[in-house]
Amino acid sequence: MNVKALLVEFIGTFFLVFTVGMAVIDPGAGDFAGLAIGTVLMVMIFAGGHISGGHYNPAVTLGVWLRGKASITDAVGYWIVQVVAAIIAALVVSVIKPAMPTAALNGDIPVIGALLAEFLFTFALVYVVLNVATAKGTDGNSFYGLAIGFTVLAGAYAVGSVSGGSFNPAVTVGGSIMNIFAWGNIWIYLVAELLAGVVAAFTFRFLHPGE
Amino acid sequence: MNVKALLVEFIGTFFLVFTVGMAVIDPGAGDFAGLAIGTVLMVMIFAGGHISGGHYNPAVTLGVWLRGKASITDAVGYWIVQVVAAIIAALVVSVIKPAMPTAALNGDIPVIGALLAEFLFTFALVYVVLNVATAKGTDGNSFYGLAIGFTVLAGAYAVGSVSGGSFNPAVTVGGSIMNIFAWGNIWIYLVAELLAGVVAAFTFRFLHPGE
Amino acid sequence: MNVKALLVEFIGTFFLVFTVGMAVIDPGAGDFAGLAIGTVLMVMIFAGGHISGGHYNPAVTLGVWLRGKASITDAVGYWIVQVVAAIIAALVVSVIKPAMPTAALNGDIPVIGALLAEFLFTFALVYVVLNVATAKGTDGNSFYGLAIGFTVLAGAYAVGSVSGGSFNPAVTVGGSIMNIFAWGNIWIYLVAELLAGVVAAFTFRFLHPGE
Amino acid sequence: MNVKALLVEFIGTFFLVFTVGMAVIDPGAGDFAGLAIGTVLMVMIFAGGHISGGHYNPAVTLGVWLRGKASITDAVGYWIVQVVAAIIAALVVSVIKPAMPTAALNGDIPVIGALLAEFLFTFALVYVVLNVATAKGTDGNSFYGLAIGFTVLAGAYAVGSVSGGSFNPAVTVGGSIMNIFAWGNIWIYLVAELLAGVVAAFTFRFLHPGE
Repeated sequence: MNVKALLVEFIGTFFLVFTVGMAVIDPGAGDFAGLAIGTVLMVMIFAGGHISGGHYNPAVTLGVWLRGKASITDAVGYWIVQVVAAIIAALVVSVIKPAMPTAALNGDIPVIGALLAEFLFTFALVYVVLNVATAKGTDGNSFYGLAIGFTVLAGAYAVGSVSGGSFNPAVTVGGSIMNIFAWGNIWIYLVAELLAGVVAAFTFRFLHPGE
Repeated sequence: MNVKALLVEFIGTFFLVFTVGMAVIDPGAGDFAGLAIGTVLMVMIFAGGHISGGHYNPAVTLGVWLRGKASITDAVGYWIVQVVAAIIAALVVSVIKPAMPTAALNGDIPVIGALLAEFLFTFALVYVVLNVATAKGTDGNSFYGLAIGFTVLAGAYAVGSVSGGSFNPAVTVGGSIMNIFAWGNIWIYLVAELLAGVVAAFTFRFLHPGE
Repeated sequence: MNVKALLVEFIGTFFLVFTVGMAVIDPGAGDFAGLAIGTVLMVMIFAGGHISGGHYNPAVTLGVWLRGKASITDAVGYWIVQVVAAIIAALVVSVIKPAMPTAALNGDIPVIGALLAEFLFTFALVYVVLNVATAKGTDGNSFYGLAIGFTVLAGAYAVGSVSGGSFNPAVTVGGSIMNIFAWGNIWIYLVAELLAGVVAAFTFRFLHPGE
Repeated sequence: MNVKALLVEFIGTFFLVFTVGMAVIDPGAGDFAGLAIGTVLMVMIFAGGHISGGHYNPAVTLGVWLRGKASITDAVGYWIVQVVAAIIAALVVSVIKPAMPTAALNGDIPVIGALLAEFLFTFALVYVVLNVATAKGTDGNSFYGLAIGFTVLAGAYAVGSVSGGSFNPAVTVGGSIMNIFAWGNIWIYLVAELLAGVVAAFTFRFLHPGE
């Protein structure tokens, strides 16, 4: 167990879920919520990537493990810390926000559409992570945080009206606690996101057979 | 045929056209559509550029071929995959979107204005691509995806009110299927975009005689 | 005393506080104020970081000093110049703005919420600064200004509705002069921001024991 | 005379002024005009900086000349091409735009406020250019286009409501032709912008005595 990496994963996931709650729940950032969320993910990756890899997302950790860049022990540790950080962030939001929503903000979603939306952009996210942060061809670049964080920004504006735009099981859990997502829909998010992590990992391995 | 490069071109073009459809067609991203579209192009270039060059655009592939950095065989393969990806992305959007537009969103465009708008910003796009991704003077930089993707962002906000802002024959085809552009106007886009790719390639060759 | 570093700190802090005033006070940048403020911080860090470190923020200077990358003499000099720059920026805004607010724009803030909001995002800011600008693991990167400046952007959209989003004692002083913040609340900002700088510095030292 | 550098200056200045006109004049980019303008400057600098330095702005060329990184012959050539490009861009906008404004959009500006606004952000722009594109301490960085282009973005949102936000004599000329600025105010822009270029150059020389 690398306690330093776990602390970095905690901090990054906490700020991601905290920003989701603060920016999405009224009074928040309005249409700028997607910019705020993609941006906070970017800065946390730039800050913590050199210590933990900057996952902050169980689907990313799943993809990195399947790609062969994390042990199962590390992955389990990351998953636990990411979910705990999301829960604590949701609780902090509930302390600060004057009025939390009483009904899920994104409760009435189309099942097929939401499955597709969450699958596609979580695939894009893990595909981008593996290519910009673990591939030899992009080694030493200075854009990894921008590329990864802003994939979430693009997804939030592209499919936010369909699924709310989670792309991250920790955000899904934290968002469900904050009534951004409905608990009854949680399977949609988790199935689509984790499957996307698997497909992205095998896509990466097909594209980079020697690595 | 490099199957890996073709798969990367498929993924990148798919997400570009998918984001165009999801962000532009109501309910979408509103005024943030241009940000979402430029951003998704940026992240796909950062992710796939080291494998395929990250064209995702037949006009870019045309320019890269004329600049001498792609064989005609590769170019034809890229063109086919880019158009197929655009068609599939349009179909996926039609599955997800509750209401596709029945009439073209950008149907009533001024011919001269739209020709100029599409020519100018497709020229800018291919000029930027060739300079930041194939020139010796910018070798090893970490900004190529930002520069290329955000050229489309700037163009979308600058001339979106004139032509809708395609700058890409694959986006033009996908957008026509999704009724974002009118089929009767498709020649305007294709003529302007492909001509711009040619002019940008020769401009680059004039500027870099030794490369 | 390094007069060049002090001049750079003056210029950077001046433009940060000037932009805060111009963008926030009506007629300003509306919802784009957060983008403008994060952006101006980014560009001033990219411009001046190689001379002064690009702090422009007494809480950052406190964190850098506790992390061991600045002497107490330098820190005191930075603090004085940062506050003086903020005061002068506020005065210049009052010359340009046709109508300064007569009552504090963010006067009625919840104490616990504002303490949490200012503490959390000032912690994030100093944590990002120390990791991207002083850590061996990110040495030579080209993203430090983007990461630091856009942490303030994310924070502005995330918690701007709670505390106004200062994260910087110099901005707090300048903002109080411009009636963006209420003088009666200044202790909330200063306590939360300076405490966050301390906690971020010790977090960094725990994460990088050898540096 | 370096014909290649002059062509690059023409292209970059053309797209900058073209985007100003298209984004600002209704129907344009609305509140996103500042983002579009800063972004197009960024991409043109990333594309052309390795050939011409990527000035696209007579005040920047003035500053670079005074800093000792351009001959007077080069500077005069740049100035002529920049102004010609601005004039042609304004004419192209007048061909595309269905309705050009009949009265200056930013005609009624406060003299002192506009002088200060244009001076301050043109100073910031030239200060950023000299530090990120000509200083030894930032040599080889990948952020120069982002830093320079987004200085204009920050300025547009900070002081756009005061002066319209030109920071560039070529934009001032092109904008006056397009009735974005009033001809009677042109001295305000030119005096403030050129003076800012001078002050920024001497500030840079004070900060970097050995270069």
